[in-house]
Amino acid sequence: MATNKQVILRDYVSGFPKESDFEITTTNFELRLPEGFGVSRVIESGHPDYKQGDLLWGIVGWEEYSVVTPDMHFKIQHTDVPLSYYTGLLGMPGMTAYAGFYEVCSPKKGETVYVSAASGAVGQLVGQFAKMMGCYVVGSAGSKEKVDLLKNKFGFDDAFNYKDEGDLSAALKRCFPKGIDIYFENVGGKMLDAVLLNMNMHGRIAVCGMISQYNLEDQEGVHNLTSIIYKRIRIQGFVVFDFFDKYSKFLEFVIPCIKEEKIAYVEDVAEGLEKGPEALVGLFYGKNVGKQVVVVARE
Amino acid sequence: MATNKQVILRDYVSGFPKESDFEITTTNFELRLPEGFGVSRVIESGHPDYKQGDLLWGIVGWEEYSVVTPDMHFKIQHTDVPLSYYTGLLGMPGMTAYAGFYEVCSPKKGETVYVSAASGAVGQLVGQFAKMMGCYVVGSAGSKEKVDLLKNKFGFDDAFNYKDEGDLSAALKRCFPKGIDIYFENVGGKMLDAVLLNMNMHGRIAVCGMISQYNLEDQEGVHNLTSIIYKRIRIQGFVVFDFFDKYSKFLEFVIPCIKEEKIAYVEDVAEGLEKGPEALVGLFYGKNVGKQVVVVARE
Repeated sequence: MATNKQVILRDYVSGFPKESDFEITTTNFELRLPEGFGVSRVIESGHPDYKQGDLLWGIVGWEEYSVVTPDMHFKIQHTDVPLSYYTGLLGMPGMTAYAGFYEVCSPKKGETVYVSAASGAVGQLVGQFAKMMGCYVVGSAGSKEKVDLLKNKFGFDDAFNYKDEGDLSAALKRCFPKGIDIYFENVGGKMLDAVLLNMNMHGRIAVCGMISQYNLEDQEGVHNLTSIIYKRIRIQGFVVFDFFDKYSKFLEFVIPCIKEEKIAYVEDVAEGLEKGPEALVGLFYGKNVGKQVVVVARE
Repeated sequence: MATNKQVILRDYVSGFPKESDFEITTTNFELRLPEGFGVSRVIESGHPDYKQGDLLWGIVGWEEYSVVTPDMHFKIQHTDVPLSYYTGLLGMPGMTAYAGFYEVCSPKKGETVYVSAASGAVGQLVGQFAKMMGCYVVGSAGSKEKVDLLKNKFGFDDAFNYKDEGDLSAALKRCFPKGIDIYFENVGGKMLDAVLLNMNMHGRIAVCGMISQYNLEDQEGVHNLTSIIYKRIRIQGFVVFDFFDKYSKFLEFVIPCIKEEKIAYVEDVAEGLEKGPEALVGLFYGKNVGKQVVVVARE
């Protein structure tokens, strides 16, 4: 291994990450290396279960070559699908959508489902799973291009650009005249407040993320929580790592869906490790359309 | 029936109710009559299931004589306990504590339980049910007298006066060095924010009430909701009316507890229907110690 190109963090990041927080280096001095989910091929192994040539997905550093341990790495069995899918549809975001929707939301046919950040890696799948179940599904996103994707590519019944709506609660009332049974929460803050006003009795909110809040020093206040009582709402936070025992069940379900083209999946591809910082920073400003992927090397 | 003394509302109430919002009258003109849970004896009945002399509990007007219908009225079978208990321990607050703790909180022996408004009609019972189950229980209330009651009468492991604590989160950290597994929510607002910071992984919050928020025109914002994700917290709102099918099971459990003195129960008794408005207004300022009862007539 001659050199190992790496992306490192100059220092701890406060607030939104900026491109200037990162540095591209070829030294081997590992200082605050960011990590992410990636697909790798084994070059050398001292572990009996992993041999040269094996394909893996799991957490890797932002670098050309990584030293990894078996925990948090899955061997890739199905190679007749694009390998990049293991960073998304067939990896952590796919499992998140699957477990979050089927295990946390307790969905029933005919229910109404609202997904925020709906064109993202997780949201686009939740919407499609909900449609497969016979739910009425509405998504929101932050650009006309994304809203069009939701309606035309992912099969959502309706969608809106939250940036165009002065009154989020009114937008939800327009899309859900009979109220929301299930909310798949990806953003938090003002959106959650508007949703609470539009939830139905015995509604469920699966809290997957609150991306609007993560990088705020003071998080926005949510004011409509008394709705939880009158409407008997259940709010459940979840993290995908608690559901990895269901991964093979998930693959059995989703691989045929991909092959039969029952699921549409959109990636936003950045070419080259050097594009990593820009791609990450873009996430917080909604620049990506679909799952953000960075190509480090092609097969 | 010569006259029927009644408490009426002068107009719709905005913000906290004031005594001047009410009026005592002896006319039969029913204008905005407030309602509450009460115990009554049947004087006259046109319904085959109810005969003169029967004792009932359920929703009645604030008046000496009420016309009631069978829905929302239970016939009192056990008369060897104080009848006023049917407005509290054996009525709606008792069922609320029972269903909220056993059905909503999913409690396990050895878990830590925090109850706010803990000396109130519901809170005092939740704490005692949790102790019976082998949990570590801490309550908060708004006066030294109430805190003493929690520790010395209701058997809470610890208790604090939230008005004495500049930093609610620090108070909770002091009482729960290993974190909170279950929060029985009665108050909302700043307290919920402090609790979220101190919840344990897979913690549960049963939302019974948010009394600090009901009469605010603008509810306080809750800022720490991202904790829901990392800690996989479940928040469940509930209303006792959904659990009345368990009422006889509840009585089977609680009547022996009362007879064997396993449960302590404190009432704050106001004498006379005229004291109703003052007693109600006092609730919002925490003036009552224990379940607030108004004696309209004694047997």
